[in-house]
Order: sequence, then C-alpha cells, then structure tokens
Amino acid sequence: MKLTGKILIAQGGGPTAVINQSMVGAVLESRKFSQITKVYGAIKGVEGIINENFMDLTMETTNNLEKVAVTPSSALLSTRVKPDEAYCKEMFHVMKAHNIRYFFYIGGNDSADTVRIVNESAIKANYQFRAIHIPKTVDNDLVLNDHTPGYGSAARFVSQAFMGANLDNIAMGGIYIGIVMGRHAGFLAAASVLAKKYPDDGPHLIYLPERTFCIENFLSDVKNIYDKHGRCVIAISEGVCDEKGDTIISQLSKEKEVDQHGNVQLSGTGVLGDLLSNTIKKRLNIKRVRADTFGYLQRSFMDVVSDVDQQEAREVGEKAAQYALWNNVDGSIVIKRTGFYSVDYELVNLSEVAGKTKLMPDSFINEKGNGVTDAFKFYLRPLVGSRFPAAHRLRAPMADKIVNV
Amino acid sequence: MKLTGKILIAQGGGPTAVINQSMVGAVLESRKFSQITKVYGAIKGVEGIINENFMDLTMETTNNLEKVAVTPSSALLSTRVKPDEAYCKEMFHVMKAHNIRYFFYIGGNDSADTVRIVNESAIKANYQFRAIHIPKTVDNDLVLNDHTPGYGSAARFVSQAFMGANLDNIAMGGIYIGIVMGRHAGFLAAASVLAKKYPDDGPHLIYLPERTFCIENFLSDVKNIYDKHGRCVIAISEGVCDEKGDTIISQLSKEKEVDQHGNVQLSGTGVLGDLLSNTIKKRLNIKRVRADTFGYLQRSFMDVVSDVDQQEAREVGEKAAQYALWNNVDGSIVIKRTGFYSVDYELVNLSEVAGKTKLMPDSFINEKGNGVTDAFKFYLRPLVGSRFPAAHRLRAPMADKIVNV
Repeated sequence: MKLTGKILIAQGGGPTAVINQSMVGAVLESRKFSQITKVYGAIKGVEGIINENFMDLTMETTNNLEKVAVTPSSALLSTRVKPDEAYCKEMFHVMKAHNIRYFFYIGGNDSADTVRIVNESAIKANYQFRAIHIPKTVDNDLVLNDHTPGYGSAARFVSQAFMGANLDNIAMGGIYIGIVMGRHAGFLAAASVLAKKYPDDGPHLIYLPERTFCIENFLSDVKNIYDKHGRCVIAISEGVCDEKGDTIISQLSKEKEVDQHGNVQLSGTGVLGDLLSNTIKKRLNIKRVRADTFGYLQRSFMDVVSDVDQQEAREVGEKAAQYALWNNVDGSIVIKRTGFYSVDYELVNLSEVAGKTKLMPDSFINEKGNGVTDAFKFYLRPLVGSRFPAAHRLRAPMADKIVNV
Repeated sequence: MKLTGKILIAQGGGPTAVINQSMVGAVLESRKFSQITKVYGAIKGVEGIINENFMDLTMETTNNLEKVAVTPSSALLSTRVKPDEAYCKEMFHVMKAHNIRYFFYIGGNDSADTVRIVNESAIKANYQFRAIHIPKTVDNDLVLNDHTPGYGSAARFVSQAFMGANLDNIAMGGIYIGIVMGRHAGFLAAASVLAKKYPDDGPHLIYLPERTFCIENFLSDVKNIYDKHGRCVIAISEGVCDEKGDTIISQLSKEKEVDQHGNVQLSGTGVLGDLLSNTIKKRLNIKRVRADTFGYLQRSFMDVVSDVDQQEAREVGEKAAQYALWNNVDGSIVIKRTGFYSVDYELVNLSEVAGKTKLMPDSFINEKGNGVTDAFKFYLRPLVGSRFPAAHRLRAPMADKIVNV
C-alpha cells in the first residue's frame, strides 16, 4: 500500500562538507515518485517543524540542487535541539496539517536518536509515518557503519593540513601540535597519519580519546622524538581524557558550555593547544612550540573534499528515499564495506544506531597508544578519495665540505 | 665580463605554498649557463652557509624539481637568523672556498635586509659577488611590489576557509571569529572578503593592523551585525593593536617570545581568539561564540594554491637568474601590475625593499575601519587564481503555513 503525502527532509547536528549531497540525493529521488505530493525541507532541523518553516523543494531547480550538493555545511540549516514527547506532539500536529508522511533526518547519533523518538511517538500517536535516519558525521562514530559520510572529506582536510604542517615544521624546526575534532572517537585525529610519506615525516605522535592521556607519558614521547629528529609534529584529539575519564580541555575551561545533548564545548577554543605548548616549553625547555586548533575549518572548508565521500553521501540520501518509498519501512541507512574498495547500503533498526558511539577498534591503535597501525591506514586510504596530494623532497647529494673538513 | 663560479640559492623566513617554485625557477634557469660551475642550495638559509651545508642541485633531476616546486614550505629549510658583519665575514670565507659568486635569497623584507647586508659586506671585502633578493611573503608587505609570491595562495586559503566558516555559521548561528596571519599589514585578513557572495554573507567585519583596534567599537560592531542577521562572522589580523600601538595579543601573553628580528610570536596560539570570544560572551550575552586561529595552516596547506601565484613565484626565481647572469647586477626582484590581469618584473636596489613594510593603502579600507572596499576586491581577485570555488544556496520558495497563520 502506497502512503500518499509529503516528504520532509531535515539536517541535524554539526555540518559536514557533503551533508548537502545526502539532502540532494533524497530530494531528487523523492521527486520521481507519484505518491509524493511535495518534497519539503525543514529549516533548522526539528525546529523548522514546530515553527512550520518548510521550503518547497519541488520548486527548486535540478541545476541549483546540484550546485548546493557540492557546497559544504547544511543548506537547510541545523539545530542541536533534541525533541521530548511534548515537542514531538507539537511536531505531529504540524505534520498532520501538512500531510507530511515521510521524514528523512540527516545527522549523527544524536540525530538518529531524534528520529527514533519521533518515530516511536508517531506509533504511539497512531500517525501513519515513515522515518529514516541518514548518516553523517565528521567523527565517524556511528555504530554498524564501516564509516560515515562526512568523515572522508574531513579526514582529507586533516591529512592535507598535517602534510603542510609537517613541511613547515621541517623548514622551521621545533614542535608543532595540531588539535583535531573528535569527542569520543579518534578517527579524525588518526587521519593525520596519511601525511606521513618518508619514515621521519610527522605526525610522529597521535593521541586519541580511546586511550588515557597522561601528560608525563606525553612529555616523554615528545622528548624522544625531539632528541631523534630535532623536531616533532603531534596530532591530538580535542576529546582526550585523563585516567578519570575527564577531558583535559574541560579541566582547563572555567566556564563549561554544555549543549542540549549534554556535550561540553570542545571546538572553537585554543585552550588545549596553548596548555600543551606551554607545558612543553617549560618542562622540556624547547623554545619553538606552536599549536594550531583546526576548529571549524576541518568540517566546512570549501573545496577540500573526497570524491568517494561525496558519492557515498549522495547515495545514502538516495537510498533513504528508495527504502521509504519502495519498501515502506523505517530505519537507519548504514554503509557496509564489500571490497577494496566498494560499499553497499543496508537499513537497520533506528535503536541499533541511535545514541550509540563507535570508537576506534584496538587493531587501529598502536601498542603505546601514541599512534595508529597500518590496518588503520589500509582502512582509511580509500575514504579520502582520488587525486590525493603528496609532498616531495629534494634528494640531490650534499656537496663536499672544503672549510670544515 | 662573465663572472664564473657557483650559484648559491637559499630560502629565508616563514614558508609559503609557492616558495619552492621560486627556488626551482632559479635552479632550472641557472643550470643553463656555461659560466655556472655548480648550482648549490644552502640548507637552512644563511646558517647553511657558515655550516657549509650545501646541496648540489646540479645533481637533482628536473622531474623531482618540478614535484618539489608544487610542494609547499621551504624545501631547502629556513632560518630566522639575521647575519651581522662577523657572520658575513664567516660566510665569505666559506663562499670564497667554494668559489660561490652568485647568491639568490628567497624571502620577505627581513631576508631582503639580509641580502643587503651580505652584499654590502661583499663590496667592503672586495669579494666579487652578485646578490639577488627574490620576494616571497604571505603577508604581502614588501614595498614597491604590487603583491608578493605566496600571498595569492595564502589569500585563497583564507577566503576558502571563511566561505566554509560562513556556511557553518549560517547553519549553526552565533558568532564566529577567524584569526588570520598578518603582523603589520592586513592583506591576508582582508582576503577573507572574497568569501562574501550574497549581501548577508560573512565575514561581516574585518579588522586590520592598519587601524586601531578598540574593544568597545568591536563590541558595538558585533552587536549591530548580530541584531541584524542573528549571527556574525569576523576576520581579525593577529597583529591588531590598541591606540598605543601595542598588539592586543602581546598584552595577553605573559611570556613573550621574540625572534632575532625582534618580532613577538603571534601565530601558533589561540589566546587572541579566546579573549575576544570570552569578551563577546560576557559583554553581549551571546552564548554560541567560536574562534579559530588559522595558524600555520594558511601558509603551508597542501593543495590549496593559486595557479597565478605559482606561475609568478616561478618567474621571480627565473628572473633572478636572468638578471644576475645576463646583466651581472644586484638587487631585489619586484612585481609590477601592467594590466587586468598581467604583471612584469623589475629589479630595484636592495635598500629600496630591505626592512621596509608595505601596509594596506587607505583606498582598500572602509571608512569605519571594519571592512574593505571594492577597490581591494578588484585588486585581490586575480591573485587567488582560477577555479576559485563558490558557495550556493537553496532558493526554493517557502511553503505556506497552515497551523501558525
């Protein structure tokens, strides 16, 4: 039985470089079906629903949709609001009035949980309704997914950034620290490893939230590398924690800012980088220590994008429409790896993905907990896409000395 | 009369994305001349000379030189050492021993001053010697030059970063501050303006070292924009100063780090961004305020580069060899704009460029001192090169409201 009515698409959580690909994939596919009376976009995620702010995407040109698809960040705007039952009731009231029968929400595990809550409330309210979660997150932390759309492009940015930072550090010397996004999962900081080409290239050390961050071990690691190479490049996840499980950054910030999902602000401040560089300066007596916090650049940078990531992001959006409209089912789209390199898509129950966090498996982290393995590199490489740049060095011989022989 | 001997090429100061283009341009052109017995590269700028660390670039393949040319940062490594007379004496001792008769130094105004000192010392020492300064700097602050190699690519990075940051800010709301390199000249922060496409796009405010930074005016500017758009994107030069001429950043850092040229460390710390966002949070009572310090990403990022910048960087290196070897003269290569868009190269006396700083002309800065003019945009646009990306928005109509009418 075909469920006739409108489709509503929304975007939740932090933007990515390819989240609009998923939106456009869902819109273009949905517009083909005769039981779909309109394709709406909610402005600002679930907030757009209770505020009744719907853009009529059946009135958008295909040309402009394609241009928006290659534009980073969330074209329908985003929200971090997490609906409770009262909020959901309000949402159904509005959706019923518009005969919205399909809801596609593009987001991370918090957004998947939103879809789950909305869907369960729909069942309780006896409202005929299909809800599909479309995965996205730069953190790559959705369970059951081999990886998530948005990660490949952010990983590409991070590795290109470290390629340049490593070259800069070779030329100028000293210590370089790059702070990378990643609250619980270290996949994005780990991606810095692709900057390594020659054995002495940085990042020489990579610290992930999956392993306890101990400042004494850190200093000893840095000293070892510095003694060996006369320089050191370090990648650190912003979410690294001490042995008690408290983030290093939250110990430093006096006033903690917490969002509706209970998450402390980690990005958009240089405090962790500054603490670590000051500690190195003082304790190791190294003069030139620099820290960059990559912040929002890594998730929304214009034109540094993985083509593989773009294509997969498009496909998960398209699959959402296909599952909902051909199969009339609810769920969360997941990416499965089927070859080197190929993927396919499946639909799983919302509760299997919602609110859960995937961490880096042990096989991806080295024994000392200060680097990653070749297994991780093998996993990562296809995700950053084609035309991946590489740095080159001079390799001419040194001239014989005449004066100082 | 042809001066027979070796050529020595070195790189000084901070790296850029295209400084290796200049090196390769100089090497490839120099290798054609029969009076040149060898082409050497000094490892670590002038330090490589007294340490007699010379790479024999006549033994480097053209293929690898071309690959190094498109690799950012200084392949011959760099230094911030500024030679005095004793240092120069040591240098001549080594250069004489190797029969080095030509010295090409790629760098900014500090490096130009180094070339001037070395050249004057050579005359005093009666050492037959040609010295040419090849311009580079991301700050774009060399006098007599329309612009300098390195700036176009860094400007491209900055504008692409703000394009993404603006899209992120549209989606998530609040205030975004991006701290951009630029000690005295605001050209790089000003380049953020190319991120603006639609009238309400950010950056909404741009603060430059050429104008006094007053925190009260800043807060009032931010409030105005926030009241109008519900969000605000701000670009700030790291070198902004108060009415006394003291940098805001040096007032914040307890321990100042000063290099051999007397410059205080500005990059590689998030302190300015953190101060400004905390001030906005407190004084304007705006919750979501984020600051990113672009740091070293903007000068060495892999694969975000202006093709125009690459070509010009190559040409200034090539011209250095041509002036020295055909005309047997000393000086500094400068870029002159001859059309829209075309350039040509001239040689000026070293003393005309050395140690001097070009600032943004008044015609490039708006009356309020919180933005730039169309004249600046017209100046900048060709420098960031071709295939410059653009962001796109959905422009479908909003659906009629049913519930909240």
